[in-house]
Amino acid sequence: MSAKYVYFFGDGKAEGDASQKKLLGGKGANLAEMTNLGIPVPPGFTISTEVCTYYYENQKTYPSDLPEQINEQIKKLEKLTGKKFGDDQNPLLVSVRSGAAASMPGMMDTVLNLGLNDKAVSGLINQTNNKRFAYDSYRRFIQMFSNVVYSLNHDSFEEIMNHQKKEAGVKDDTELTESDLIKIIEKYKSVFKEKKGEEFPQDPKQQLQKAIDAVFASWMNPRANTYRTLHGISNTLGTAVNIQSMVFGNMGDECGTGVGFTRNPASGENKFFGEFLMNAQGEDVVAGIRTPLPINELKIVMPEAYDELLSIGKTLEKHYKDMQDIEFTIENKKLYMLQTRSGKRTSFAAFRIACEMVEENLIDKKKAVMMIDPNSLPSLLAQVFNEEEKKKSLDNGGLIAKGLAAGPGAATGKIVLTAEKAVEMAKQNEKVILVRHETSPEDIAGMHSAQGILTSRGGMTSHAAVVARGMNKPCIVGCTGLEVDYENSIIKYKNGGDTSLTLKENDWISIDGFTGEIINAHINTIPSEIEQVFVNKKLTLESSKLAQEYKNILEWADSFSTLKVRANCDTPHDSMVARKYGAQGIGLCRTEHMFFESNRILAMREMILSPSTEERKKALNKLLPYQRQDFIEIFRAMDGLPVTIRLLDPPLHEFLPHEPEAISQLAKELNTAENIVKKHIEDIKELNPMLGHRGCRLGISYPEITEMQTRAIIEAACEIKAEGKIVFPEIMVPLVGNYKELENQEKIIRKTAEEVQKEKNIKIDYLLGTMIEVPRAAITADEIAKHAEFFSFGTNDLTQMGAGFSRDDAGSFLPEYIAQGIYESDPFAVLDQNGIGKLMEIAVEKGKSIRNDIKLGICGEHGGEPSSVAFCSKLGLNYVSCSPYRVPVARLAAAQAALSKS
Amino acid sequence: MSAKYVYFFGDGKAEGDASQKKLLGGKGANLAEMTNLGIPVPPGFTISTEVCTYYYENQKTYPSDLPEQINEQIKKLEKLTGKKFGDDQNPLLVSVRSGAAASMPGMMDTVLNLGLNDKAVSGLINQTNNKRFAYDSYRRFIQMFSNVVYSLNHDSFEEIMNHQKKEAGVKDDTELTESDLIKIIEKYKSVFKEKKGEEFPQDPKQQLQKAIDAVFASWMNPRANTYRTLHGISNTLGTAVNIQSMVFGNMGDECGTGVGFTRNPASGENKFFGEFLMNAQGEDVVAGIRTPLPINELKIVMPEAYDELLSIGKTLEKHYKDMQDIEFTIENKKLYMLQTRSGKRTSFAAFRIACEMVEENLIDKKKAVMMIDPNSLPSLLAQVFNEEEKKKSLDNGGLIAKGLAAGPGAATGKIVLTAEKAVEMAKQNEKVILVRHETSPEDIAGMHSAQGILTSRGGMTSHAAVVARGMNKPCIVGCTGLEVDYENSIIKYKNGGDTSLTLKENDWISIDGFTGEIINAHINTIPSEIEQVFVNKKLTLESSKLAQEYKNILEWADSFSTLKVRANCDTPHDSMVARKYGAQGIGLCRTEHMFFESNRILAMREMILSPSTEERKKALNKLLPYQRQDFIEIFRAMDGLPVTIRLLDPPLHEFLPHEPEAISQLAKELNTAENIVKKHIEDIKELNPMLGHRGCRLGISYPEITEMQTRAIIEAACEIKAEGKIVFPEIMVPLVGNYKELENQEKIIRKTAEEVQKEKNIKIDYLLGTMIEVPRAAITADEIAKHAEFFSFGTNDLTQMGAGFSRDDAGSFLPEYIAQGIYESDPFAVLDQNGIGKLMEIAVEKGKSIRNDIKLGICGEHGGEPSSVAFCSKLGLNYVSCSPYRVPVARLAAAQAALSKS
Repeated sequence: MSAKYVYFFGDGKAEGDASQKKLLGGKGANLAEMTNLGIPVPPGFTISTEVCTYYYENQKTYPSDLPEQINEQIKKLEKLTGKKFGDDQNPLLVSVRSGAAASMPGMMDTVLNLGLNDKAVSGLINQTNNKRFAYDSYRRFIQMFSNVVYSLNHDSFEEIMNHQKKEAGVKDDTELTESDLIKIIEKYKSVFKEKKGEEFPQDPKQQLQKAIDAVFASWMNPRANTYRTLHGISNTLGTAVNIQSMVFGNMGDECGTGVGFTRNPASGENKFFGEFLMNAQGEDVVAGIRTPLPINELKIVMPEAYDELLSIGKTLEKHYKDMQDIEFTIENKKLYMLQTRSGKRTSFAAFRIACEMVEENLIDKKKAVMMIDPNSLPSLLAQVFNEEEKKKSLDNGGLIAKGLAAGPGAATGKIVLTAEKAVEMAKQNEKVILVRHETSPEDIAGMHSAQGILTSRGGMTSHAAVVARGMNKPCIVGCTGLEVDYENSIIKYKNGGDTSLTLKENDWISIDGFTGEIINAHINTIPSEIEQVFVNKKLTLESSKLAQEYKNILEWADSFSTLKVRANCDTPHDSMVARKYGAQGIGLCRTEHMFFESNRILAMREMILSPSTEERKKALNKLLPYQRQDFIEIFRAMDGLPVTIRLLDPPLHEFLPHEPEAISQLAKELNTAENIVKKHIEDIKELNPMLGHRGCRLGISYPEITEMQTRAIIEAACEIKAEGKIVFPEIMVPLVGNYKELENQEKIIRKTAEEVQKEKNIKIDYLLGTMIEVPRAAITADEIAKHAEFFSFGTNDLTQMGAGFSRDDAGSFLPEYIAQGIYESDPFAVLDQNGIGKLMEIAVEKGKSIRNDIKLGICGEHGGEPSSVAFCSKLGLNYVSCSPYRVPVARLAAAQAALSKS
Repeated sequence: MSAKYVYFFGDGKAEGDASQKKLLGGKGANLAEMTNLGIPVPPGFTISTEVCTYYYENQKTYPSDLPEQINEQIKKLEKLTGKKFGDDQNPLLVSVRSGAAASMPGMMDTVLNLGLNDKAVSGLINQTNNKRFAYDSYRRFIQMFSNVVYSLNHDSFEEIMNHQKKEAGVKDDTELTESDLIKIIEKYKSVFKEKKGEEFPQDPKQQLQKAIDAVFASWMNPRANTYRTLHGISNTLGTAVNIQSMVFGNMGDECGTGVGFTRNPASGENKFFGEFLMNAQGEDVVAGIRTPLPINELKIVMPEAYDELLSIGKTLEKHYKDMQDIEFTIENKKLYMLQTRSGKRTSFAAFRIACEMVEENLIDKKKAVMMIDPNSLPSLLAQVFNEEEKKKSLDNGGLIAKGLAAGPGAATGKIVLTAEKAVEMAKQNEKVILVRHETSPEDIAGMHSAQGILTSRGGMTSHAAVVARGMNKPCIVGCTGLEVDYENSIIKYKNGGDTSLTLKENDWISIDGFTGEIINAHINTIPSEIEQVFVNKKLTLESSKLAQEYKNILEWADSFSTLKVRANCDTPHDSMVARKYGAQGIGLCRTEHMFFESNRILAMREMILSPSTEERKKALNKLLPYQRQDFIEIFRAMDGLPVTIRLLDPPLHEFLPHEPEAISQLAKELNTAENIVKKHIEDIKELNPMLGHRGCRLGISYPEITEMQTRAIIEAACEIKAEGKIVFPEIMVPLVGNYKELENQEKIIRKTAEEVQKEKNIKIDYLLGTMIEVPRAAITADEIAKHAEFFSFGTNDLTQMGAGFSRDDAGSFLPEYIAQGIYESDPFAVLDQNGIGKLMEIAVEKGKSIRNDIKLGICGEHGGEPSSVAFCSKLGLNYVSCSPYRVPVARLAAAQAALSKS
């Protein structure tokens, strides 16, 4: 028995359905589903994605019985419509469209009106009694087919058209007469023959075969490949081909075509939103030659069609349990649906739609949680402009230009053109906006220091866009017309004509990352509505519908989640914010960050430069009270929740000054000779500090550091417990690669903790564990688990060492790697599941083999990235930890991961 | 049934045998074996190592029935000897010795004469009719027992002795009379009571128990722990205790004691070699108070005992199939054997003994190969002094001092006291000897630059000793009396008295790493005998017995080996040497080394600093002929053998100058502005170059580099093939972590190779493979194997990334790690089998799962280290590759690994 490659839909029933997206592509599956639902869909058939796979696995050939299967479908179609392919009385015309499982904008354009030829065009006249329409359709078909299938440039065709218009003395295409069009058709065919050395294909079956070939070929065109690489879509999925009988929205005044959303995609309001054009084909709506009308007007022109459209919209929503994005055509008052799919929406709309659909009993809470893209959350939390101020600025003509809104949020600051300047000015507490042609990895520090980023080049996936979104920074890219003149430290904007605006470095500018607006003014920003309700308490929950929706969705999410979400916090303030955003503990508290403040850094430097253990202990004693106080405040903020504290991690030279003046100043403060300090700083410089004297290696060389830190943690815990609060410290040893390192530190920590508890006569329940961030640790996790009550995956370092990428230096090759598809995305942003993930798998398995209840978490930056969170959930981790503002993202991603598993 | 803990030997039969070293320790097992062989051994028994294990697993207690088992053995011993423990007529005296499976110099000293007390001493007089002997024995016992078992310092006892000698007006111990000794005994006992608060134990059973306790306690003393850590001996093995009835070599002129080797341990000559003392106990031979006589003299004094000793020696050699190191005592003309074990020998002796034993049909070739420590080979290959010159220098009083011979070989050079000076002078082609108190990791470069290393401090396992042996550098350490005065750039040697010799930096000095001699002269060195025969052909094979033996052993080794040995060579000269030392190919040819020569480095720099691909290609074209010519010469030297060529690997900044003058010079040569060159150099500086833009990342960023190198390789191969020679190039892509990197480079290499073969119309059989040196590569080796025909483990980098150790920076913590036993040895010298080895296992398994016949090798420095070679053999690799001078070491180690497996 031969396999089935082609699936029919029409006349109220279809061979496929919506569940078969992988086989039929999204478009084909939904056409089948709509047919089955009794919705009016022009009949047609879908050639499955398996044929595409076969095509590429067999040197671009087809299964032997495919032509026969297609012929049968054509016959069915002819029978159903009463029309015949190529017929001179009643010709069957079809559209041919590609349709992969996932939306693939890189692929082939649609071919309409296929089946027309010199004979069939008279058939079309016969059918429609509309000569002009028939010749215009034929004319369009030749151009479209030549372009899409034969890659002939539009230019030659447009030249003919323009020539004919000139000859006819008309301005507009629509003014051309039938005879003009007949002349044009002849010229088009000559051009085709001239360029391709053959006649324009007249046989409809040959036309169809060519169009099918073109669809499959387009699967591997460079645009499509790039798109797939960028979006992590596998090459092996393949595309389907949809062949559907034509309906015409351009046959007269009782015809039309349009697109719509079953709810408002911007606000989420439950009201059909759409637009249409009378007497037009789909391409006219998109091309923007004529301005479409709002859907309300359809009610006036064709009330039945309008009512039916809205009713079908409701049916589809009910059926698909989601807001739909639809395309329709009205042919002589009869409504046909040409496509339906889930509609894109803003993050604000997403929350409203999900919550309202739950209220309407259309979906359950699980579905509501699944409906929201976790990556849309940062835009909900981003700060916004003071609306009044912004309006005033715009009213005053402050709008300079618009670019692509690449990172949500509002930012205002002084213009700076270099990353160095950004860093320097930020140090002086100046707010800056970094403006560049395009950013590169060397600009990372500058991007961090800036309020927002603006580039003249690049698209939504450019370096600036990707990095800014990762940093939750407002960002506008691709602002063409903006000239960045580094030499003269100015930016210029030419708005088409001769007028241009020039701004200098240090001038104020404001960018709206929601809208892409660039405004020549200082506009104050305010926190997001969510932040005002939950963190600052400046708004009440009652006053904000958005906040209520946010609260609902995230509470539902938590109820489904199997993964806890913690935050990476180094300060009491961060801890408070994280808790307000729903963090269930701190997964990473970096103790070294506490040493950088001005009054502490001196003691830290004194400690590092100590010539003896005694001196070092003295300096450490100075640090102890600071550290203890920080822990007290963090524990207080996290009352009742676990706090994982990582012992000193970075190489010591990071704490030392490197500028001559700073060194001389330090020598004075330490009462030491300058050259001694200099020599010491020189001595601890490293060639590869990433792999040098850091992490637990410090605690092993200088056990007194571990002692001091343990003492600070346990003393703080005792104090908090004495206050009547609940404290769960988790002491984490960094950079362990060999169980003996942990064993060494364990002894010191246990002994010191014991001592403090005895001194204070208070019992503290604490855990002792380690980071898994050195590949060797993952490989020997069984040995390490004997000494560790928990593992926390440090996937930043695990990626650095596992893949051999210095994060600081990877800028010189990683962008090229991603462009070439060697890595699908930046492995520091999206966990490399195939490589680093395998190391994690090994570690989890080995760790559990020794200690079944070992607590497992992740505290690399991947902990707030949805696909990485899903991977952690699959691995069976207990929690993920991320920066406070990513906590809601992780909560939602964790819930979705759990729901996808069940 | 209770377990057996104690094993008897005596009267011609024993309960144990030589195979039970793990249970009885080496000493106990051999005493049992000798007894079974009918060799005269004083009867006794061994408490097994299981008791030691029990002791430490049960809070230092013993199995409940151990005392009874010991009692039974004592009774057996009493019955056999007719003596009784503590008897006043015929007392049984015993020795108590520790004895672990492996030789453990850190453990407890022997206790002799145990069983003596106030009563038994009269029994001993009764037995021997020798009062002085009896009291002297008792005196010795009290001192020895107090010291060894009760840790009382010798000082108090020696003070009493000296006081008594003064009182008696004598100079020598032997002049003391019985009554002197009686007084001494009383005073000894008082001292014991005073220090320990109890009487000196009189009960022999109590004495025995205390001595047994002391042996077990000594297993965990710091000296023993350190020794085990250094030699990788497990703590859980435990020690046995040997209790043996005393025989006395010190009972008169028909008594004596001695030690010997069944063959000459220095030359290997098949002639009994030993020395003895008449009327003495074992300790006297060791203490060096009296000068022992050569064994020949025994023939004169006691010919029967002499003949029996030689005959026993032959018997033992025949039985153990190895040269034996024995201890014996003659009591009233009767010979007793107290110990036998395999004897230590020089590397020269080792080859002679092994070969002669094969000739004598005593052993087979396999055993001969197994008998030689691969680490002894470098001393065979080390250069030596011109003997005449050295003799002349010594005759002229040139010997300054003697230290510990820590690294074999002879070296002569100018004295330098700092590593920097060593590097600097070596650059000017000056030969230097680096003299330091002790070396540290910062001195590595200096050690590399020096001909030899001399330190005043440190032992055979000090940094200088270990590193020098690793580098095959002559080295003398622990030369006490040598003062190194860094401030004044001089060294001083005080030879005991007031005279001292002072030498300045730049004075000539010569060190003999075979003998530890330091000579105040310039003495020319010559290559080793082996090198003269096999490499330089200055000596014929016929003229050198050593060379013949070397040839035999290594040929036998190769015949047993399952692992091929290749060499790491970057030049035609190295390739020639490697081949002479038996390399079966080149496992690593580092192409970058070819770019450092003066005429090439400019083109290389031009390439790196090229502003465009076009310019880069132009510069690469200049490099092509150099590279091709190198390959031609290397292929020629390796006619018929495979040559693995690694494509460009190091970060590009390594090729660039960093000094201002050099930069300005370069700018001139390149005809570019200095600040442009400077900026460019600055731009490619990296924070962690180890993990930066290097390896295949270069070839991916600049495919034209890969093209040029492939072209050079294949063009060279074509030329060699045209000469009628056989060439097997293996092109190796470095630093692959993701199969897509290899896929990318594979395309370029295959395409270029195809082109060149077409151009030359010659077919080249080449392989394409990759290093496995990034942890991610090991973990995803299955994916990588789809594109790689071979894997070569780059264990240097795999260790760096796997363990997170920058080799350049690890000096700040690794020595501490090794001292604390966190790593048993330097993981860059000895492969970390438990960690990095696991990554290799995964890679081998995954690689073979996809490509069963994948060729596997190692080219890290571990490829020449015996335990690592054994691991590679176990893993099933096809070859190891190491530096040319380590090839013989690896060949022998590979054979031993294969023989150990079978």
